[in-house]
Amino acid sequence: MIVDLDRNNPTPLYIQIKDRLAELIQAGLLGPGARLPSTRELAGSMGVNRNTVISAYEQLQVEGLVSSHVGRGTAVREHLPASAGGARREQAERMRVEALLSATWRSTYPQLPAGSEQLLEAPEVEGTISFASHEPDLSLFPVGEFAGCLQSAMRKYGGDLLAAGPSRGFAPLIEYMPGFLARRGIQCTDREIMIVNGIQQALSIVGRLFLDPGDTVIMENLSYPAALGVFRSLQASCVGVPLDDDGIRVDLVEGVLARRSAKLLYTIPTYQNPTGAVLSPERRERLLELARERQVVIVEDDYVHDLCFDGREVLPLKARDTREGVIYLGSFSEILCPGIRLSWIVAPAAIIDRLLLIKQFTDLYSNRILQGALLEFSQKGLLERHLKRKQAVYRKRRDIMMDAMKEHFPAEATWRKPRGGLFQWIDLPRGTDALSLLLKTRSQGVLFAPDRIFSVEEWERAGLRLGFAGIDEGKIEKGIQILGDTLKETRGGH
Amino acid sequence: MIVDLDRNNPTPLYIQIKDRLAELIQAGLLGPGARLPSTRELAGSMGVNRNTVISAYEQLQVEGLVSSHVGRGTAVREHLPASAGGARREQAERMRVEALLSATWRSTYPQLPAGSEQLLEAPEVEGTISFASHEPDLSLFPVGEFAGCLQSAMRKYGGDLLAAGPSRGFAPLIEYMPGFLARRGIQCTDREIMIVNGIQQALSIVGRLFLDPGDTVIMENLSYPAALGVFRSLQASCVGVPLDDDGIRVDLVEGVLARRSAKLLYTIPTYQNPTGAVLSPERRERLLELARERQVVIVEDDYVHDLCFDGREVLPLKARDTREGVIYLGSFSEILCPGIRLSWIVAPAAIIDRLLLIKQFTDLYSNRILQGALLEFSQKGLLERHLKRKQAVYRKRRDIMMDAMKEHFPAEATWRKPRGGLFQWIDLPRGTDALSLLLKTRSQGVLFAPDRIFSVEEWERAGLRLGFAGIDEGKIEKGIQILGDTLKETRGGH
Repeated sequence: MIVDLDRNNPTPLYIQIKDRLAELIQAGLLGPGARLPSTRELAGSMGVNRNTVISAYEQLQVEGLVSSHVGRGTAVREHLPASAGGARREQAERMRVEALLSATWRSTYPQLPAGSEQLLEAPEVEGTISFASHEPDLSLFPVGEFAGCLQSAMRKYGGDLLAAGPSRGFAPLIEYMPGFLARRGIQCTDREIMIVNGIQQALSIVGRLFLDPGDTVIMENLSYPAALGVFRSLQASCVGVPLDDDGIRVDLVEGVLARRSAKLLYTIPTYQNPTGAVLSPERRERLLELARERQVVIVEDDYVHDLCFDGREVLPLKARDTREGVIYLGSFSEILCPGIRLSWIVAPAAIIDRLLLIKQFTDLYSNRILQGALLEFSQKGLLERHLKRKQAVYRKRRDIMMDAMKEHFPAEATWRKPRGGLFQWIDLPRGTDALSLLLKTRSQGVLFAPDRIFSVEEWERAGLRLGFAGIDEGKIEKGIQILGDTLKETRGGH
Repeated sequence: MIVDLDRNNPTPLYIQIKDRLAELIQAGLLGPGARLPSTRELAGSMGVNRNTVISAYEQLQVEGLVSSHVGRGTAVREHLPASAGGARREQAERMRVEALLSATWRSTYPQLPAGSEQLLEAPEVEGTISFASHEPDLSLFPVGEFAGCLQSAMRKYGGDLLAAGPSRGFAPLIEYMPGFLARRGIQCTDREIMIVNGIQQALSIVGRLFLDPGDTVIMENLSYPAALGVFRSLQASCVGVPLDDDGIRVDLVEGVLARRSAKLLYTIPTYQNPTGAVLSPERRERLLELARERQVVIVEDDYVHDLCFDGREVLPLKARDTREGVIYLGSFSEILCPGIRLSWIVAPAAIIDRLLLIKQFTDLYSNRILQGALLEFSQKGLLERHLKRKQAVYRKRRDIMMDAMKEHFPAEATWRKPRGGLFQWIDLPRGTDALSLLLKTRSQGVLFAPDRIFSVEEWERAGLRLGFAGIDEGKIEKGIQILGDTLKETRGGH
């Protein structure tokens, strides 16, 4: 029997043998009932290990092509299965997956605003200037230094870094966090901290701890679309409250809470996404009071805390949370880079302990290797240095964008200078259709994020979000000019 | 006004200023109604940026200590809040978190077998020999080479590796996977693959796609406890089917399916956890047929596929899945190391597309930096080399353990030589209490995993799992001897 083996082929030898024998059987060269050589015999003749042939025969049996009986050896089956050995998949026999999907899944996921941001990530024209993205400028990332930190972390922590670990996170990083957070005015112990895969996972597990279908979540209108998606995936009822330059209208939150109870209040109080608003001190105070009075848990998303441009750092709500009512979410995505996928939650231990249970049955723990590398990176002062550099670069880009807008935008487009973060929000006259504006600028190679992708409730004003952080300085003015020209062209329409 | 600033203190200056002013107010040195200096004035006298003082005043306002009015400046409030400035937390005002937890959470998580494995991870006595762990031997990990791969991946993929990305995974790794999987006999396209955070996340999102409360999941009894936990957290009804040396008793699965319908059949067909059993070719064939007939989705957990010791590699069920009925889960945790937290799912595109939606609202995407490093590591042949080394080391440890067991174990302890994987399963006479055995050996510094932590249904036999992969060769015999002596001492009890 001749079976050609290609020892340079990555396909394992036993699969090559199995495939060749299957071909012989299907071609009828080995007919029904035909005895195959013993495994010892075939192995000898082919110069392979006997176990290799045993594996090949086992697979032929799984495929229904041969049968094996102790003492009688292996023979081609009398009745070969219709699908035998072929790569063809039989339509008739396929699983009817649709019928098996959970009712919960069917009633939620297909309705979610999934991929709403993909509009902005479409294949770009050569030279496209995308103000739509909120990616940090990755060319600032100190590749060599970070890789060095990975290596030194591996040496320092050894097996502990490579092994499985507790759901809370890599212990040395957890121990480091209270000191790191003290610089934001947050006092906490390591029992009040856990590491998660991005703010999205934080929202997902917090949502699952508190929300039953129909429960109410209050949030800014406009807000971060992925957060809205998480709450809706849990069948929560999301109420959007308008915001202005001083952040969410706490007086209106009060009105909502007078009419209905809510479980969670999700807010981005500092450099809000998408508006860039910073919640004023008065409103912060009142919001904390109100949440306590009404027993609503505040979920504070402080995703760009450190990207402050004017030296007026804003203390998180959590720093003044004297009654254990704020769940604080922070992230290394914007400070360092999104690809690291590490964020954290600070909350009272009674909440963290319960979130840890959910994390345990969700994905056990977050990758530990990068937690170690990040810790080294931060302890060596490299994170701080990286952040300072980012602040300077982003501030400069913001300023270039401001100057360009002053020159090229029509008077009816208004804005406020962002004190930090990644975005510039532009208010447009009521009735402006930001999406059709996008379709126009897109054909000229300029993208931005239109208001509607951020809307929780119907939103009567109009506007757009311009990200400045990741755009090369040389391109900002050109992009703003194109956008300004398009704005001027379309204003006749209103 | 004197405010001492410590510029070497990591606490930001504005917080230092705020804290000092709060002290003055609380001490009554700045009484109710007292006017604070203007921000310009104070900044000048202290030699700090004016914005620093503005931030400090804003925080004092948030804390309810001062009020600020345009034109009138900032003054100490007439009525200071009870909690003002103090770190004391007022019990009376705290959130009553318990009342807010979701009904779903309350009815499931507190009942889960969480931490059942923590028994085995308890603080160890100096010199403890733990056969309980299934950690790979991390001293085999090529730290320098992996760090080098991280660095070259960062250079090669640049921003793409550091940025946010699609839920499916890092595109170059996804494109690489079909070739990687072909070596396991699995034919698939990149649309049928996604990357997840460990097999736990795979189980969690697969469970959420298919399971409503009360739905049935069939699994081996005994099985992987974390999988049981995931299904129970989704309120599924888990049915455990006995297994023997040839894997799950497919005839009994058939019996179960004759009486009730099931959504999922979760199986570890190769080097089963905890028994090490390999599902026989006949049973594989019948299981695939049965699942098709009864429209049950097979969830195949092939977590240690590559750790084969005898050259008889076992092709996964997925390799013969001609009717799109198998969801295949594989992992880099055991091949490389758990700390990398990267696994994958192979399933028909119609299932993957839906799982991607769940992943999107769960944690958006898995860390991309390590996906890139892993890809480099594999493409350079280092993963293959690492695996070969592991195989050789683990096989040797298995053999040492076998020899030691022959010498030290009493006749009533029986076992079968594992063909691969990380564990040796020992059958003990019915009625043996493996947990009380553990308590005895523990005091002598020997740990193992007793049967009960793996039980899905009541399990009439008795046994224990011994992990050999991560234990230094020199310690295996000593541990086995202690265990054997304890077994002999206790047999009188039956």
